[in-house]
Amino acid sequence: MRVVVPFSADRPKTRLSDTLDPTERRAFARAMLGDVVETVRDAGADPEVLATEPVEVDAPVEVDDRRLSLAVNDALRDGLPAAVVMADLALATQRSVRRLVDTEGDVVVAPGRGAGTNAIVVRHPEFRVDYHGASFLDHADAARELGAAIRVVDSFRLATDVDEPSDLVELLVHGDGAARDWLVDAGFELDDDGGRVGIRRR
Amino acid sequence: MRVVVPFSADRPKTRLSDTLDPTERRAFARAMLGDVVETVRDAGADPEVLATEPVEVDAPVEVDDRRLSLAVNDALRDGLPAAVVMADLALATQRSVRRLVDTEGDVVVAPGRGAGTNAIVVRHPEFRVDYHGASFLDHADAARELGAAIRVVDSFRLATDVDEPSDLVELLVHGDGAARDWLVDAGFELDDDGGRVGIRRR
Repeated sequence: MRVVVPFSADRPKTRLSDTLDPTERRAFARAMLGDVVETVRDAGADPEVLATEPVEVDAPVEVDDRRLSLAVNDALRDGLPAAVVMADLALATQRSVRRLVDTEGDVVVAPGRGAGTNAIVVRHPEFRVDYHGASFLDHADAARELGAAIRVVDSFRLATDVDEPSDLVELLVHGDGAARDWLVDAGFELDDDGGRVGIRRR
Repeated sequence: MRVVVPFSADRPKTRLSDTLDPTERRAFARAMLGDVVETVRDAGADPEVLATEPVEVDAPVEVDDRRLSLAVNDALRDGLPAAVVMADLALATQRSVRRLVDTEGDVVVAPGRGAGTNAIVVRHPEFRVDYHGASFLDHADAARELGAAIRVVDSFRLATDVDEPSDLVELLVHGDGAARDWLVDAGFELDDDGGRVGIRRR
């Protein structure tokens, strides 16, 4: 299956501004992108990166600097079925990606926290994505309006987009790719000194 | 399978203090407990509530006011296999609970965010739980030391313990039980006015 991986190459991961400087955020975001592309390929699917500007990665890259939903809907027109998997799903594994693409349904969604849509499979030609706001609910509504069968994939790994400092905990605990290595090399470690487990930097 | 559901009856959900008053927190926590017990039973398993003080709920209740890990380990001694499912997993469904109890392994863990252990199945007689700190990692280590096979259940629903205000978003979006109804009746709704989806109270 085609798997479109949208990537914001210009100003990635702004919600990590307090934790990483701009150069670090770019490097970290690229490491996550590389992990996602590799995981998608290992899962037997065909990654295609859809980036806001050219980026070096081991997959075909299409550059489209329009806003996310427009660019993705255009990419979907190039052939269905297709999946869209966000480039910051650094906890994704072969197994979770396979669960996604193997789940039948006109529209299959792996929700993210905060009513987001972290990954989606589209098999219905009239379905359009809209990532603004509570997109999980909007996508469910849109599928219903089309009479399309919607299925939800219940995966913690696919639900965890690495966006905020607290998400780095998840990557340190559950990750095993280049993005986790990048974090460890950058001096991050778990902070388990009492209370909730957090991160600290050496 | 026996499913022990630990419940802190005395001071539940203190991390929701800014959002709900003490009486509300008790009512909300009891609604979640009721949902979890019902879901466990619907999944074909046998819920047993392990509470810090007597509580009215549609399941056998054992009162044990010692700290969580001690009480749970004692409860596990009453018979294996057994699962331990936290009382604030208000997003749990029949299906996710069945995935948990049907996964083979001496120890099966459904991690929570922040390296927590939201649900666990114990089939190895020498395994002991320890919920302090990064319990997911500690449980994995403990299983390894025993030579016990550990398996991880990848479920967003089981990973989402409802603990903090941002977790209420997940319950509003994905829940369908009494706890969600309680929140809606209390005036909570999604706040999708831009940026991240949050909650507001009417």
